[in-house]
Amino acid sequence: MDRRKFFRNGSLFTMGAALANPFESTAHIFNAGNLHKNKKAKNIIFMVADGMSTGTLNMADLYINRKLGRSSNWINLYKQQRSSRALMDTASASSIVTDSSAGSSSWGGGHRVNNGVLNIGPDGEHYMPIWQKFKKAGKKAGCVTTVPITHATPAGFCVNNDSRNAQEDIAQEYLRLGFDIMMGGGDDYFNADHREDKKDMYTEYKAKGWNIVRDRTAMMGVGNDKPVLGIFSKNGMAYSLDRANDKELEKTVPTLAEMTQKAIDHMKGHKNGFVLQVEGGKVDWGAHSNDIGALLYDMVAFDDAIKVAIDFAEQDTETLVIITTDHGNANPGIIYGKQANSNFDSLQEYKHTNEWILNQIKPTDSVSTVREIIESGTGKNTVTEEEAKFILSHYTGQFGKEGGLYNYNKLPFEAFAEMQKKHTSVGWISMDHSADYVELTMFGPGSEQLKPFVKNTDLHYMMLQAAEVENKF
Amino acid sequence: MDRRKFFRNGSLFTMGAALANPFESTAHIFNAGNLHKNKKAKNIIFMVADGMSTGTLNMADLYINRKLGRSSNWINLYKQQRSSRALMDTASASSIVTDSSAGSSSWGGGHRVNNGVLNIGPDGEHYMPIWQKFKKAGKKAGCVTTVPITHATPAGFCVNNDSRNAQEDIAQEYLRLGFDIMMGGGDDYFNADHREDKKDMYTEYKAKGWNIVRDRTAMMGVGNDKPVLGIFSKNGMAYSLDRANDKELEKTVPTLAEMTQKAIDHMKGHKNGFVLQVEGGKVDWGAHSNDIGALLYDMVAFDDAIKVAIDFAEQDTETLVIITTDHGNANPGIIYGKQANSNFDSLQEYKHTNEWILNQIKPTDSVSTVREIIESGTGKNTVTEEEAKFILSHYTGQFGKEGGLYNYNKLPFEAFAEMQKKHTSVGWISMDHSADYVELTMFGPGSEQLKPFVKNTDLHYMMLQAAEVENKF
Repeated sequence: MDRRKFFRNGSLFTMGAALANPFESTAHIFNAGNLHKNKKAKNIIFMVADGMSTGTLNMADLYINRKLGRSSNWINLYKQQRSSRALMDTASASSIVTDSSAGSSSWGGGHRVNNGVLNIGPDGEHYMPIWQKFKKAGKKAGCVTTVPITHATPAGFCVNNDSRNAQEDIAQEYLRLGFDIMMGGGDDYFNADHREDKKDMYTEYKAKGWNIVRDRTAMMGVGNDKPVLGIFSKNGMAYSLDRANDKELEKTVPTLAEMTQKAIDHMKGHKNGFVLQVEGGKVDWGAHSNDIGALLYDMVAFDDAIKVAIDFAEQDTETLVIITTDHGNANPGIIYGKQANSNFDSLQEYKHTNEWILNQIKPTDSVSTVREIIESGTGKNTVTEEEAKFILSHYTGQFGKEGGLYNYNKLPFEAFAEMQKKHTSVGWISMDHSADYVELTMFGPGSEQLKPFVKNTDLHYMMLQAAEVENKF
Repeated sequence: MDRRKFFRNGSLFTMGAALANPFESTAHIFNAGNLHKNKKAKNIIFMVADGMSTGTLNMADLYINRKLGRSSNWINLYKQQRSSRALMDTASASSIVTDSSAGSSSWGGGHRVNNGVLNIGPDGEHYMPIWQKFKKAGKKAGCVTTVPITHATPAGFCVNNDSRNAQEDIAQEYLRLGFDIMMGGGDDYFNADHREDKKDMYTEYKAKGWNIVRDRTAMMGVGNDKPVLGIFSKNGMAYSLDRANDKELEKTVPTLAEMTQKAIDHMKGHKNGFVLQVEGGKVDWGAHSNDIGALLYDMVAFDDAIKVAIDFAEQDTETLVIITTDHGNANPGIIYGKQANSNFDSLQEYKHTNEWILNQIKPTDSVSTVREIIESGTGKNTVTEEEAKFILSHYTGQFGKEGGLYNYNKLPFEAFAEMQKKHTSVGWISMDHSADYVELTMFGPGSEQLKPFVKNTDLHYMMLQAAEVENKF
């Protein structure tokens, strides 16, 4: 008798449950698996807080605890002993420190590839991305993210490409391959005015029967009968903190939790089930900029999306939820010191990210205007005249401009973060990814398979196994 | 019927084992607990890699993998699914970022106390330290560490004191309370020539029937009939990397693994069992100095001690091994970049720590001598003339001297670490502790009790429960 049949016949399940109940203290070693052990995963929700160092997870939980008096939804899964946990080795084929395309490809294609590449091996091997496998198995498949929908992490589940940068091609590939709901930022890669090839992808998607939604209201109202393309911003979507303090953005742009809810609602009626990737993509961008308001509040927004997924999975009982990150980034942490508590709590007063703040400053501003802008964003006056002058010198050309992966406007993120450190007690090791093993948790049918230490590639095979989809492609 | 009796009668144990075997994939959720579920913990070995951020654990495992082609003993427990795991919240009563005395007190006394204090509450409450509880229950109790044996982490299991700095008093308290084997550094707090009160503690210990050992050979040869005080250095013991490249130190100073083995051998024959704390104390000091050679190789030495403890516990079957840290420190991580692999591998060529290197440099040295000293320690010429000049300026008084917790000689650790970063790809958030939740694992009887998220204070009660020692004090 095979394992599945045995479980479905129920002997272990029944016995396990009967035995576990009287012994509260041992319940957790049964718990993660037992509720679901006689089921296969009809649906899978794969959630990625991109570039989330362990410290980022911790800070979001500490923030929520201190502000709201409860745990984060992620940590609560542990406190309530409802999920299984592992550490995950995130290396790529080319480096102990992965980028997001190789990271997503490891899950998506089941093989480690070089940094920068999507599901193509060092010798040109093409690995079929897992959302294509699930589509062939009859499921619906989609992705939602806060960065362009053509960005590395969604792309790694969907396409093969020599370069993650080929976002215009990726927009076309999604259409050719045919997914069911794809939402996030990235007008740059769909709009004829911004694409190098001047193709109007919106028209092409429409011609193939897709509904296009361009704002929150349209997203909320769109029907479930056709595939949906939702594009809510030019490039990455606004950071959660900036959105929360901008009435126009709040009205027009959905949250990650709202996109997650919409995607679930859109696909949940499908008889063969669905698979959905949810990416908190700007967690990574916040870390790249050492932008604490951006990082912290986008991690909290990701945590809100966890609640949506778990609430659905709990009721549905046939959904496996996987929650993890592709790699660490900047390894932030709260640093020892007499003011550590109050400094960290001062982040509760933040109104805007450093990105918002630094984009407000103009070369012609006075030093006092610079200080006022910073105060309006952080809730208090934290920079000296000397510091404000130094920041201003990055705009006037007196000081060289900063670079950085997503620093499109060459803003002085690093200089400002360094000043901020003494007021927030949060430090960073760099403005880039780290090799840290990362946190991974699973909830629902298939979660009992999780071993305490896994390689990123293992998840590919675990998803197929949990859903009982043969790996024949 | 109570839980223990039920387990000892064996019904769940027998059934669990019979059911688990045929299903390899579910074995791990039984594994951590089941082997030991019908046993109480006669012995406890509590292992602390002091100040170990998650990145420190990861780097040691990556180093061992890339150098030796195997996993670290810690990560191997996960790969072999032999231990249970949790995240631990490490806060103290006074801060979200603990120091080592409040950290050890949380485990030792079961209550959070203010930073700097040993098992005395904010209102003066005295909490009986857990090694005293176990002594009263008839067990033998000891501590081994690479820092002074009177330092915060061993002290937190043994004594009450308003201040962790009262190391002379703590040396006397150990004698008054009567433990069984106490080994590490700290001649400063025992030797009449160094103590402020000029008391000769060695004579006092001898008078009370203790054997005193002052070097590796004496330690190896000492009998098990009397309690043992082993003091192997003036203050902290040499870093593992420096010891490994110094024949005299190798001969005279034991490793943490050797001290662990000795302490186990010393106490294992006791009919009521034993409790032992093992601290890799200089992991923390290495992080405080951003001294990568110090940190990495002391973490590897701690991992060697894990093998000693697990090998014993495996054979003994009545020993609970707890492996964790008291708090993160400096959140080190390997940073993304084309050279990340080769930079990290260059640490395999290191011969000495930054502490050793910086202590070799004299104000009268030439720039080229400074560069030669650094090359002799790191295995290659990594500093430019300009950089060597800058380092030298910290000795000649042209540049202010650095401070830092364990930086007794005011050496330029921070300046040097900053230069090193581009050659090692390892970065740091600061030179102090962090608020990160930390990694915790348990092996042996009682490990099945571990929940996936715990507070540091929980461990106090888990130890008592696992050993079935009533908490009546």
